[in-house]
Amino acid sequence: MKLVRYGRPGKEKPGLIDDEGRLRSLAGIVDDIGPELLSDKALRKLAKVDVKTLPLVRGEPRFGVPLKGVGKFIGIGLNYADHARETGMPIPNEPIVFMKAISSLSGADDPVMLPPGSKKGDWEVELGVVIGTRAQYVSEADALDYVAGFCVVNDVSERSYQFESSQWDKGKGCDSFGPVGPWLVTRDEVIDVQRLDLYLELNGKRMQTGSTETMIFTVAQLVSYLSRFMTLEPGDIIATGTPPGVGIGRTPPRFLKAGDTLRLGIAGLGEQQQQVLAYPKTAT
Amino acid sequence: MKLVRYGRPGKEKPGLIDDEGRLRSLAGIVDDIGPELLSDKALRKLAKVDVKTLPLVRGEPRFGVPLKGVGKFIGIGLNYADHARETGMPIPNEPIVFMKAISSLSGADDPVMLPPGSKKGDWEVELGVVIGTRAQYVSEADALDYVAGFCVVNDVSERSYQFESSQWDKGKGCDSFGPVGPWLVTRDEVIDVQRLDLYLELNGKRMQTGSTETMIFTVAQLVSYLSRFMTLEPGDIIATGTPPGVGIGRTPPRFLKAGDTLRLGIAGLGEQQQQVLAYPKTAT
Repeated sequence: MKLVRYGRPGKEKPGLIDDEGRLRSLAGIVDDIGPELLSDKALRKLAKVDVKTLPLVRGEPRFGVPLKGVGKFIGIGLNYADHARETGMPIPNEPIVFMKAISSLSGADDPVMLPPGSKKGDWEVELGVVIGTRAQYVSEADALDYVAGFCVVNDVSERSYQFESSQWDKGKGCDSFGPVGPWLVTRDEVIDVQRLDLYLELNGKRMQTGSTETMIFTVAQLVSYLSRFMTLEPGDIIATGTPPGVGIGRTPPRFLKAGDTLRLGIAGLGEQQQQVLAYPKTAT
Repeated sequence: MKLVRYGRPGKEKPGLIDDEGRLRSLAGIVDDIGPELLSDKALRKLAKVDVKTLPLVRGEPRFGVPLKGVGKFIGIGLNYADHARETGMPIPNEPIVFMKAISSLSGADDPVMLPPGSKKGDWEVELGVVIGTRAQYVSEADALDYVAGFCVVNDVSERSYQFESSQWDKGKGCDSFGPVGPWLVTRDEVIDVQRLDLYLELNGKRMQTGSTETMIFTVAQLVSYLSRFMTLEPGDIIATGTPPGVGIGRTPPRFLKAGDTLRLGIAGLGEQQQQVLAYPKTAT
């Protein structure tokens, strides 16, 4: 299934995308798409619904984050060998774990807002992994059983914030820096999560091209690894790292400017498109 | 007011501590203590309740995290000049921001569980700041108006995890590494948040002694600073750094072992006491 939440920010309704790519409403079937819907059992039950009976949704509503109730938004750094090289950082011996602020979550096509004074906004197309079942100390062999599904994440980053202190979280957690979606694609629809093509375009020009084949740590390894020191809860999202082609890795570097447009996607998981804007707020 | 949530994990009920230090129930007055109760308006309304009419609670129930619905659990690194020195790290020019996993949150007296293989568990008594009102781009002068209150936090850390990669979050986010409480003390009860004494004892021996007077960045500065790159939401907690005396700063270093007992507190904000245990789970 391709699950979505559509409508105005804070007022999203549950829906799904049918085999013809049309949006259908899940109103009356589920209240919302949240942690309690992400277990294998709940998803199996939902999959029994006859899609043809679900009302088609007219128009082209906004897509919100395709699940509510995200508890942790975990990032993995430098998880593609060639991306590690372009940033000039050593290839990690084990996953580099950081956290994106929950308040950075935004819809797939919501604008990316550069904070006042931001000079080094950057893009990172990433495979997002959504936890479906509470995971503590799970083995690599079992790890994917704890995953509800997958989605596109843009791990937007402000490189000067990221590297200003030793800790990256400041540059990863700004409002609007976490577009997720448009769809949450359940794991039964993804035949091999380690063979997914990723891409990102800036103003129509291809910047990132990659495949999850070249991840240093696989999705199963990451879920197992994380579950050994923090309980993963249904609704947690893991952004699994980005392939090469980010702005800071270019010669000369190319950072985001108001007016830029980003388009990014992953095969089978849908596409995001974001306008880059200057943040409208100023200090009180 | 000293607000609490008491009872078994996941079944906590709202209460408060009266002027004689007795626990009284807030059942029937509020459903729970969460983000919607933390605004100035909601807290003023609650403060009008005649405390003497609230039923006393018998026994000595467990205290849970004194608020539910924590969205972000933000940590500030090296925010006391003398602690920065003991760790051998330079005094930061601006706040070092990291994140503690929400799943690390635990009650004030819940055990601290060392992950399997943990060798360098450490303690950090900290002033916790609870956001009461959504804060975006707030000035330092106004910043405290956005704070609901204060609490004790033990920013438990695993130093080998913390320093294994460049990013600290792995060593800060383990399950049970975030005891918060026992009380959420509303800000009207704290006369000067920059003159609070903090202490921590390990097995009855004083390890940390400090005062919020020696913070590098004040609470007002931290709230203002953070609000300039991420929206602070009601219920967010900021752990504002620790004074000297952590295990890694001692000669020789002293790390946590199963069987240790921690006792820590802040003047006016209550005291925590934790047994240190080995984590009971192993890999499946």
